[in-house]
Amino acid sequence: MRAAGQGRFRGQADPVAQKFGRSVHFDQRLARHDLEGSRAHAAVLAKAGILSRQEAAAIRKGLDRIEREIVQGKFRWRDSLEDVHMNIEAALTARVPAGAKLHTGRSRNDQVATDMRLWIRDTIQGDLAAVTDLQRALVTLGHRYREVILPGYTHLQRGQPVLLAHHLLAYVEMLERDKGRLSDAVRRAEVLPLGSGALAGSTLKLDRNVARKLLRFRDLSTNSMDAVSDRDFLVEYLAAVALGGVHLSRLAEDLILFSSSEFGFLKFGEPFTTGSSLMPQKRNPDMAELVRGKSGRLTGHLVALLTILKGLPLTYNRDLQEDKEAVFDAADTWRSSLEVMARAVASLEVDAGA
Amino acid sequence: MRAAGQGRFRGQADPVAQKFGRSVHFDQRLARHDLEGSRAHAAVLAKAGILSRQEAAAIRKGLDRIEREIVQGKFRWRDSLEDVHMNIEAALTARVPAGAKLHTGRSRNDQVATDMRLWIRDTIQGDLAAVTDLQRALVTLGHRYREVILPGYTHLQRGQPVLLAHHLLAYVEMLERDKGRLSDAVRRAEVLPLGSGALAGSTLKLDRNVARKLLRFRDLSTNSMDAVSDRDFLVEYLAAVALGGVHLSRLAEDLILFSSSEFGFLKFGEPFTTGSSLMPQKRNPDMAELVRGKSGRLTGHLVALLTILKGLPLTYNRDLQEDKEAVFDAADTWRSSLEVMARAVASLEVDAGA
Amino acid sequence: MRAAGQGRFRGQADPVAQKFGRSVHFDQRLARHDLEGSRAHAAVLAKAGILSRQEAAAIRKGLDRIEREIVQGKFRWRDSLEDVHMNIEAALTARVPAGAKLHTGRSRNDQVATDMRLWIRDTIQGDLAAVTDLQRALVTLGHRYREVILPGYTHLQRGQPVLLAHHLLAYVEMLERDKGRLSDAVRRAEVLPLGSGALAGSTLKLDRNVARKLLRFRDLSTNSMDAVSDRDFLVEYLAAVALGGVHLSRLAEDLILFSSSEFGFLKFGEPFTTGSSLMPQKRNPDMAELVRGKSGRLTGHLVALLTILKGLPLTYNRDLQEDKEAVFDAADTWRSSLEVMARAVASLEVDAGA
Amino acid sequence: MRAAGQGRFRGQADPVAQKFGRSVHFDQRLARHDLEGSRAHAAVLAKAGILSRQEAAAIRKGLDRIEREIVQGKFRWRDSLEDVHMNIEAALTARVPAGAKLHTGRSRNDQVATDMRLWIRDTIQGDLAAVTDLQRALVTLGHRYREVILPGYTHLQRGQPVLLAHHLLAYVEMLERDKGRLSDAVRRAEVLPLGSGALAGSTLKLDRNVARKLLRFRDLSTNSMDAVSDRDFLVEYLAAVALGGVHLSRLAEDLILFSSSEFGFLKFGEPFTTGSSLMPQKRNPDMAELVRGKSGRLTGHLVALLTILKGLPLTYNRDLQEDKEAVFDAADTWRSSLEVMARAVASLEVDAGA
Repeated sequence: MRAAGQGRFRGQADPVAQKFGRSVHFDQRLARHDLEGSRAHAAVLAKAGILSRQEAAAIRKGLDRIEREIVQGKFRWRDSLEDVHMNIEAALTARVPAGAKLHTGRSRNDQVATDMRLWIRDTIQGDLAAVTDLQRALVTLGHRYREVILPGYTHLQRGQPVLLAHHLLAYVEMLERDKGRLSDAVRRAEVLPLGSGALAGSTLKLDRNVARKLLRFRDLSTNSMDAVSDRDFLVEYLAAVALGGVHLSRLAEDLILFSSSEFGFLKFGEPFTTGSSLMPQKRNPDMAELVRGKSGRLTGHLVALLTILKGLPLTYNRDLQEDKEAVFDAADTWRSSLEVMARAVASLEVDAGA
Repeated sequence: MRAAGQGRFRGQADPVAQKFGRSVHFDQRLARHDLEGSRAHAAVLAKAGILSRQEAAAIRKGLDRIEREIVQGKFRWRDSLEDVHMNIEAALTARVPAGAKLHTGRSRNDQVATDMRLWIRDTIQGDLAAVTDLQRALVTLGHRYREVILPGYTHLQRGQPVLLAHHLLAYVEMLERDKGRLSDAVRRAEVLPLGSGALAGSTLKLDRNVARKLLRFRDLSTNSMDAVSDRDFLVEYLAAVALGGVHLSRLAEDLILFSSSEFGFLKFGEPFTTGSSLMPQKRNPDMAELVRGKSGRLTGHLVALLTILKGLPLTYNRDLQEDKEAVFDAADTWRSSLEVMARAVASLEVDAGA
Repeated sequence: MRAAGQGRFRGQADPVAQKFGRSVHFDQRLARHDLEGSRAHAAVLAKAGILSRQEAAAIRKGLDRIEREIVQGKFRWRDSLEDVHMNIEAALTARVPAGAKLHTGRSRNDQVATDMRLWIRDTIQGDLAAVTDLQRALVTLGHRYREVILPGYTHLQRGQPVLLAHHLLAYVEMLERDKGRLSDAVRRAEVLPLGSGALAGSTLKLDRNVARKLLRFRDLSTNSMDAVSDRDFLVEYLAAVALGGVHLSRLAEDLILFSSSEFGFLKFGEPFTTGSSLMPQKRNPDMAELVRGKSGRLTGHLVALLTILKGLPLTYNRDLQEDKEAVFDAADTWRSSLEVMARAVASLEVDAGA
Repeated sequence: MRAAGQGRFRGQADPVAQKFGRSVHFDQRLARHDLEGSRAHAAVLAKAGILSRQEAAAIRKGLDRIEREIVQGKFRWRDSLEDVHMNIEAALTARVPAGAKLHTGRSRNDQVATDMRLWIRDTIQGDLAAVTDLQRALVTLGHRYREVILPGYTHLQRGQPVLLAHHLLAYVEMLERDKGRLSDAVRRAEVLPLGSGALAGSTLKLDRNVARKLLRFRDLSTNSMDAVSDRDFLVEYLAAVALGGVHLSRLAEDLILFSSSEFGFLKFGEPFTTGSSLMPQKRNPDMAELVRGKSGRLTGHLVALLTILKGLPLTYNRDLQEDKEAVFDAADTWRSSLEVMARAVASLEVDAGA
C-alpha cells in the first residue's frame, strides 16, 4: 500500500520491486472501509464548497456502484495499480471525473490510517460476538453436566474435587477479560486521523467533525504527525488476541488431557477428531491441537509488529505497510480459533463414570 | 516462590534444585504488599471469629514491626526460607504464635496472586507519574523553542515544514495513549483473588469484602480456579510497556538523528552523552541509544510471559513463578527509561540556525 | 496436513472444522518433494519385495505423470482432500491400483517430515545463491566507487573517515556468516526420517539406505519417536533468516540515512523509490524501508514456531501443522528481500561531492 | 559498558543517567576474559616494539595480580568506574604506569567484542558438558528400566507400545543436535576482532596473529566496521539455547504427564517435588514445571537481542550494551535448567506396574 499515494513509483519500473511493494492482493479486504472513508471525505469537501452538490452526489453514486461491484465479485482488481486505494481511485475517476478532487485535503497517509481504524472496529465487533458464542458453549456444557465432579488440579496433581462446570467457567472469566481488552482497543481506535494530510494537516478549512460523525468516531486526532504514523491501535489488538490465544491454548490443553484415555473425562464429537486405519480406536483431538498451536502464531504476529515499529523515525515510513498482513492473519486466526473451539466444546460428551 | 505454600520441598534437599526454585532474592520486593494482604486477611479472619480481637491485634502489630524492619533494612532475609512469604511467615510466627492461624482460609496461591495485584497497582501509579514527567519535558522544550521550524519527514525525506513543537507533541500523544492503556490495566488488576484458596475456595464463611475494602479493590474474583492461575494483568502490563518502549525508541531515534552533525538540529546536554579522547568533537547520544535498545528488552519480556502461559493446564503450575523476574525487570526498565528520557529531553538545546 | 494420514476425519463432517484443518492451499508447494519421497519409498518397497517390479514401475510412471500435470498447472487440486498428500495419493491410486501399497511401511508422520526436509534443502540452495547475488552487488558498487571516502560513524556521530567500499564490505561479511548458518542448517536437515512410521518404525525389513541414497541424504534418523516430531531444522532455518533479516534491516537503515538530503551520499535508482505529486523533489526509499520492516516479520515467524513447539509432549501432535505457513512465508520474505536489495543496491548512485 | 571507552561521560554528571548507563554490576563476570584479552594485546604491542620488554612484563604481572584479587574476592569494584573495563584499567594504571599504553591500537569497541567472544567460548564449553550430563542421565534411566514398555503417543492418544528407553532416547537425539548447534556457534565465535580499533582499524603495524594464537582463535576478522558491531555470535547462541530450552520443555511436559496419577508411570524423587500440608499425598513436579516455564524466558531473550539489533546503523551504537544482560541470563537459565533436569531425571522411579 503506497502511502505517499498521490505519486507513483517512478521511472522505468523494476518488476521485482513492483511485486515486492504490491499489496492489492491482501489490502483489498479494506475496500468497504476505503469507500466508507471516501464518502465521508466527500461530505467534508462538499461542506467546504470544494465539491459542488452535483459533484458530491456523483462521487457518492460512483462509490456506491463500486461497492456493489466488489460485493458481487464483479470489480476487476488490477495488480498494476498496486493497492486497494489506487484501484478504487482509478475506477472512480474513470467514471466520475470529479472523483479526482477527492485528493484535495487528503493524502494516502491519513486515508490508510482511517481505513485501518474502520476495519479494526468492524473486526472487533465480530470478535466480541464470537467470544460470546464460545462462552455460551462453555456455559451450556457446564449446565448440561452440572452434577459432574472432577478432580481439581494444581501442578497436574489431583487436589480438591470441583464441579466440571466450575472448571469450564474459569474459561468464561478469561474470555470476559478478553472482551474487556478488545472493547478498550475499539475505544482507542475510534479517533479519526482524516484531515492530517501527509503529515502536516491541510491549509484548507475543512470541518473534520462532518467526517467524524458520519464514520461514528468518538474523537478527532489532535496531532497530525502522530496521526499518520500511529499504529498503536493495531498493536493493542494484536496484544489482546495474543493473550486471547493463550487462553484458548490453555482450554485446548485441558480438553486434550481430559480426552486422553488416561484421564478419560471427555470425548470430542467425531467431526473434531481424526482417526487412524491402523489404530481405529484412536480419537485424536486435532482441532484442539490446532487451536493450541495457533496461539504461537498470534504471539508471532504481535512480535512482528512491535519489531517493525521499533526505532522508526516520524512520520510515515513504508515499513508501516507491513502492519497489514500480520494483523489480517491474526484476525483470521483468532476468529476461526474461536469458532472452531465453540463447536468443538459443544460436541463434547462427558463420560458418565468420570 | 512456592505456591503450594503450606508444604515444603520434601525429603533430602537437593542443593541444585533448591537454588533453582528459590525466589527470595527477587520476590522480596513484594514484602510490603505481602504484609498489606496479610493485614487484610487477618481482618477477614477476625470478623469471622477465627481470630480473637487480641490475636488480630497481635498479628497486626507483628506485621507492622516486620514492615519497619524491612524498611530500615534490618530484616534478615534467609535464602533457606526460599521466598518472601515464608520469610515473613516465619518471622511473624516466631514473634506472634497466633500468626500460624493466618494460614486459615488462605493458600499460597491466592496470596501470591493478591500480592502481585497490589504490586502492579503501585507500580503503575508510579509509571503514570513518570510518563507525565516526560510529557511535561516535551511540552516545556516545545514551548521554549516555540518559534523553531523544522522539516517534517516522511520516509526520512523532507516534506512540509513543521514546528519543532508539533513534532514533540506527537510524542505527547503517544504517551497519553500509554497512560490510557496502563490505567485500563490497573482497572482490570483491581479484582481480589483472596478467598480462592489453593484452587477451590474455602469452606469457611469468610467475608471477602472486608479484605476488598481494606485493599481498595474494585471487585472480587468470581471463579477460584481462574483466580489462582490468572496472570492476564501482568501480560496486559507487559504489552502496555512494550508498546510504550517502542514509543520511547522512536523518540530516541528522532533525537539521535537530529543530533547528528548531518541534521544538526539539536544537542544533548553533556551528562547525557559520551565523548572520546581520540575524537574530542564527538558528542555521542548514549542515553538515547540505551533507551532505544531497552525497548527490545521489553518486547522480550512480553514474549517470555506469553510463552510461559501458553498451553498450561489449570490451575496453578510452578511455571507461573517465572512471571516475576520478567515483570520486575520490565517495570524497572520502563521506569528508568522514562526518567532518563525526561532528563535527556530537558537537557536538549536547539541549534539557532536549524 | 493430516499427519495420521491413514485415517480421516470421522463421522459427519463439520464444515468449519474442515476448513480450519485444511492445508492444501498452502502445502501444495510441497508437491514435488512429496513425489520425490514417494519414488524413493517405492524403491525401498521394491527392494523388499513388497512391490513387484511391474508395480514399482507403474507407480514411478504414475508419479512422474502427476508431476508433469502439476508443473503444467493441469493437476486438479481438491480442497475436500485436505492436504497435498491425500491429493496426490488419490490421483495416483485412481490411475495405478498398486499405488495403494505405498502406505506400507510409511505413515503420514514420516512422510511429512521427509517432505519438509527435502523442501528446506532446495529452499536453502536458492537462498545461498540469492545471498551471493547481494554480496556481488555490494562488491560491485564498492568497486565502482572505490575512491569514495565517507565518514565512519559510531553512535551516528562522525568518527574516522573510511572508504565507502569498506562500509559496504562490512555487509558482505555479515552475509557470509548467514551463508555459514544456512549451510549448517542444511547439513543437519539432511537426515532421513523415512522408515520411522507413525512413531515406532516398521516391523517390515526395509532398507532405508535405498531411500537415503536416492534422496541424497547424509544420514538416517536413529530414533523414530524423535524423527516424526522433530522440527529443529525448521527452527534453525527461521533463526538463520531472522538474523539475516536483521542484517538486511541494518543495511537498509544505512542506505536510508545516506540517501536522506541531510547525509546526501547516495541516491537510489528511481524504480526503487516513490515520489509525491505534492512534493515532486522527494525520492522516498520505499524498497529499503519495506526490507527493513520485513525483518520484523521474520522474527515474528521464529517466535511463532518456538512457541508452537514449547511444551509439546511426544510424538506427533497436530500443532505441528502450524510449522508450514510460518516457514513458507519466512522463506518467501527472506528471498524476496534479498532479491530486491540486490537490485536496489545495484541502482545506487554515489554523490560525487560526498 | 561504555564502548567508546577512551572517553567518559562529560560535564556535570547526572546521577540518573549514570546509573542507567552503568554496567559493572553485570559485566564484571567478563573480568577474566578482559584480562586474557589485555595480556594478548600487550604481547602484540611488545612485538611491535610499542611496549618495552620490561613494560610488557610489568603489565602482565599487574594483570595477573588483578586476576588473583578478583578470584579471591578481594578486588574492589567501583560503581563510579561504570564498567568492568574501566575498573580493571584504573587498577592496572594505578599500579603499573605503563598500563596506560594498553590503549594504544585498541579501542573499547574491539576490546568488548573480544571479551564477549572469549566468554561465549568458555560458556559453551561448559554447556556442552552439561548437555552430556543430561544425556547420560537419560541413557542411565533407560538402561535401568530397559524392560519397561509404555504406550507410545501421538496426539496424546495411545498408539503403538514402545520401550521407555526408546522414548527417553528421543531426547538424547534432540540434545545431540543442540550440541551440534552450540559447537557451530563456537566455531563462528572464534574470530578475533582485536585490532579493529573504534571502527577503522589502526595505523600501527600490529601483528594480530600474535593475539590470535595466544587466545586460540581460529581466524582474524577481516572488516573492522563489521567486527566492532557484530553480535551475530550472541544471537546464534541465544537461538541455540532457545531451541534447547524448547527441548527441555517437551521433556518436562512428558515427565509431568507421566508422573500424574492418571498416567502413573513415573515418580520424581522427593527433593524435586513439593507437597502440601492440606494434601499430603501430592507430589508436585515443581522442578520440571520450572524448567518448562524457563523455556519461555529463553525465547524472550532471543527476541530481545534480535529487536535490539534490528535497524541499527553501523558501527557501534550504545544499544549494543543491552546484549549482555540478555545473554548472561540466558546462559544461566539454560545451564541451571540442564543441571536440574539431569538430577531430576536421575531421581525418577518407574512404577513397576506401568
